[in-house]
Amino acid sequence: MKGLKGACMFCQSGGPTAVINSSAAGVFLEALKQDNITEVYGAEHGVLGILQEKFYDISKEDIDELKLLRHTPSSALGSSRYKLQDYTVDPTDYMRLLEVFKKYNIRFFFYNGGNDSMDTCNKISKFMEEQDYDCNVIGVPKTIDNDLFGTDHCPGYASAAKYIATTVMECNLDAKVYNFGLVCIIEVMGRNAGWLAASAALADHTGLGADLIYLPEIPFSVDKFVQDVFKVCERNEGKCIAVVAEGLKDADGKYVGDFKAGAHDHFGHAALGGLAAILGGIIKERLGVKVRPIELSLMQRCATHLASAIDVDEAYQAGSFAVRAAVAGETDKMVVFERDYGADTYVCNPALVSLEHAANAERKVPIEWIVDGGTGISEEFVKYALPLIQGDVKVPHEHGLPRFAKLKKIYAKK
Amino acid sequence: MKGLKGACMFCQSGGPTAVINSSAAGVFLEALKQDNITEVYGAEHGVLGILQEKFYDISKEDIDELKLLRHTPSSALGSSRYKLQDYTVDPTDYMRLLEVFKKYNIRFFFYNGGNDSMDTCNKISKFMEEQDYDCNVIGVPKTIDNDLFGTDHCPGYASAAKYIATTVMECNLDAKVYNFGLVCIIEVMGRNAGWLAASAALADHTGLGADLIYLPEIPFSVDKFVQDVFKVCERNEGKCIAVVAEGLKDADGKYVGDFKAGAHDHFGHAALGGLAAILGGIIKERLGVKVRPIELSLMQRCATHLASAIDVDEAYQAGSFAVRAAVAGETDKMVVFERDYGADTYVCNPALVSLEHAANAERKVPIEWIVDGGTGISEEFVKYALPLIQGDVKVPHEHGLPRFAKLKKIYAKK
Repeated sequence: MKGLKGACMFCQSGGPTAVINSSAAGVFLEALKQDNITEVYGAEHGVLGILQEKFYDISKEDIDELKLLRHTPSSALGSSRYKLQDYTVDPTDYMRLLEVFKKYNIRFFFYNGGNDSMDTCNKISKFMEEQDYDCNVIGVPKTIDNDLFGTDHCPGYASAAKYIATTVMECNLDAKVYNFGLVCIIEVMGRNAGWLAASAALADHTGLGADLIYLPEIPFSVDKFVQDVFKVCERNEGKCIAVVAEGLKDADGKYVGDFKAGAHDHFGHAALGGLAAILGGIIKERLGVKVRPIELSLMQRCATHLASAIDVDEAYQAGSFAVRAAVAGETDKMVVFERDYGADTYVCNPALVSLEHAANAERKVPIEWIVDGGTGISEEFVKYALPLIQGDVKVPHEHGLPRFAKLKKIYAKK
Repeated sequence: MKGLKGACMFCQSGGPTAVINSSAAGVFLEALKQDNITEVYGAEHGVLGILQEKFYDISKEDIDELKLLRHTPSSALGSSRYKLQDYTVDPTDYMRLLEVFKKYNIRFFFYNGGNDSMDTCNKISKFMEEQDYDCNVIGVPKTIDNDLFGTDHCPGYASAAKYIATTVMECNLDAKVYNFGLVCIIEVMGRNAGWLAASAALADHTGLGADLIYLPEIPFSVDKFVQDVFKVCERNEGKCIAVVAEGLKDADGKYVGDFKAGAHDHFGHAALGGLAAILGGIIKERLGVKVRPIELSLMQRCATHLASAIDVDEAYQAGSFAVRAAVAGETDKMVVFERDYGADTYVCNPALVSLEHAANAERKVPIEWIVDGGTGISEEFVKYALPLIQGDVKVPHEHGLPRFAKLKKIYAKK
């Protein structure tokens, strides 16, 4: 509703990204400027911080440190995997949220996260409305997986994509340096949607992309994989770069990477290798070639030093836009990005969709963009994603290393 | 000897680094300017390219592409693991080298590599002298391991160190984001010398360094490791970042990472996990905590986008200095860097030592720099290494991705 005045609360939820803190900077710096926002709070460890009344008073932070959040990876406030109980089953959590909201006169609520978080955000919004508690609730999108519905793309994705494409290029040069064959298997994140794996294709035009790319949208066959690698090796002096999404599933829908549950070293300890290590073992055994499995692990989502400038800017914009929208009276919405595909250059603007719309579905890579028998990515994808990874950031440095934000984290007075 | 005139040959040897091509740029661009150098050749796949008469005519390359080598990772000419036979046992390889040198009037020979390569370079130099063939031979140092003797530090090391320290900071923020414990084990390269693992300590002053660092200089005990991790977790909400060198050995000198040879997944395939995966499995089992093993794999040596500007410059300087030294009549030497530790700022200049001196020993991290019961690195190391990682590079970009050098690679006419 319009004309609300009171405190605002910001939560970071789910897995971190290289730019999630840029959204925090956008929320905080915009909220501190707004006359209708009386206090600016940041919850420790997401919604858990509200339940436990542990949240930071952001007005106590130095503005320069808040600005450094633009170039600081991970979730500065802390995240959690706590799931709110369904309030139709057990309203305890929701009643507690309401209690805290009332106590601190929280009238603006911003929730930064992916699919699950938008569902939670939607439920909180509906609950507050049912309880006749006026609070404008806006979701701020975030996920490296790029699987949020209703938006052209999602803050966090482009930086991970830029990291993956750049790293594939660098590893390609390294892995192909010798006069003997090497199969390099690079594992990226993505349990259900293959946007991250597809981003390796952004390097295709450089000649240093991957030879094979496997997305979870297509059922994965180990036998076909071995054949695919064999064919590439045959025409390329035994050298092959394959990119695999961690969430590859076989025809029965079983995760290929879960086979690792059975892996043990010779002490009988369970080994903790990922999908790349498993596929690497199979390739080595069946083809008798040298294999280098590489897991891009946390680096793909926290390499702020290699973030896309567009992504950093849009993440910030998502935060500041959310605040302006809430103050203007919007509620129960998520910020989305709408791209003008008719424009000559990249033009993308923030807008709002209902949280229900955004939370309802998981957006996958269109099947028609997956080509070459499930091992390649079409030019349509490149046209879609390449504009997103443009621009380099200049992370502030001290003594040759990044200078990340240092927050005082002073709890709000109870 | 002085006054030589003829062709020059440049070889890249051993594992690639982020800046080995910067040395190539230094050699090529300097050699192309020298009146006494009639032809500039680059051997394909190191010394193998000379034996097989496969080397590129560098004068055919665009100068702009040669300049891009400064910011192109991996060995642009290709590397090999071919080992020359000892010429006192079997002189075939050496006689063939001499034959090729004579055929192309090669009077300047530059060999870019680490310990083994400098030994080879030394032998070639001695052999040519014994055969009364005048050729000025200069070794150009290169290794991320930083274990070359006779030099303050080695081109390639600083960029890998900067990558490791930055990545430890980024992963630290990411891994500690949740409200539950996580042990993150980060594996870096280094079979015998722990310079790379030590570089994680460069992040200590930021508060985002590793909690534990293990170098191969100190015998490794799995039991002590488990205790060390337990203690850190106890005082730090179950969170711990440990950096381990791949070459950790137990008290009997056996590589801890070789235990992986016994690892199998439940198909019976050999899993290809590294040391971090093995130690991760042990920690998970013994301490019952969540573990994230991370192997920095090829990225630590090919992440040119995060190279140290000082390293890029010094690698270039090592190449150009080698050429000027050879033309001035120097031979049987390796380029080293001499630092003025009395100066207020970082001052380091190239100089020469005999190849025999450089090739004879492997330089390890001084034992007195390893503190905290073998889990920490002293301030002396930081004073030594921090100046080396200063300065960021600006890698030329095209469409948001690095624009690496594209060489035509035209073989010299036989």
